[in-house]
Amino acid sequence: MYKAKINITLRKSILDPKGKAARSALHNLGLDEARDVRIGKFVEMDIEAANDDEAYKLADEACSKLLANEVMEDYRILIEKA
Amino acid sequence: MYKAKINITLRKSILDPKGKAARSALHNLGLDEARDVRIGKFVEMDIEAANDDEAYKLADEACSKLLANEVMEDYRILIEKA
Repeated sequence: MYKAKINITLRKSILDPKGKAARSALHNLGLDEARDVRIGKFVEMDIEAANDDEAYKLADEACSKLLANEVMEDYRILIEKA
Repeated sequence: MYKAKINITLRKSILDPKGKAARSALHNLGLDEARDVRIGKFVEMDIEAANDDEAYKLADEACSKLLANEVMEDYRILIEKA
């Protein structure tokens, strides 16, 4: 059994209103040192696979078919043995 | 300038309907090897700070005051020099 940890982020060129709202809320709380904030998704998925490569392939397919929107988002997959 | 990468996850004991929906959608797509799926948030934040420790402290405060709900969520912070 493998565990995939997937970070999905909006592409740099895409405006992130949630992040902008978080940043201004942080400033209102007095945390002025916070600069650019961007908010994405973090997916943890258990995968039944024979080896790392197979687990990676499955996670990649899951991202491109369902979890991420490749027009607007990038994703990075980390595979760990569970 | 530092960059904080923050993974926010639902606590294990909390039901994750979004994750359950993703899992069954993956099965419908034929990706039967996907097991437990849990969906959380990923926050990237630039921080103006003198050193790692200060950047970590600010990110931790931002999480506990705004970004995470500590009743239901755990978070992990990674600080990198940007």
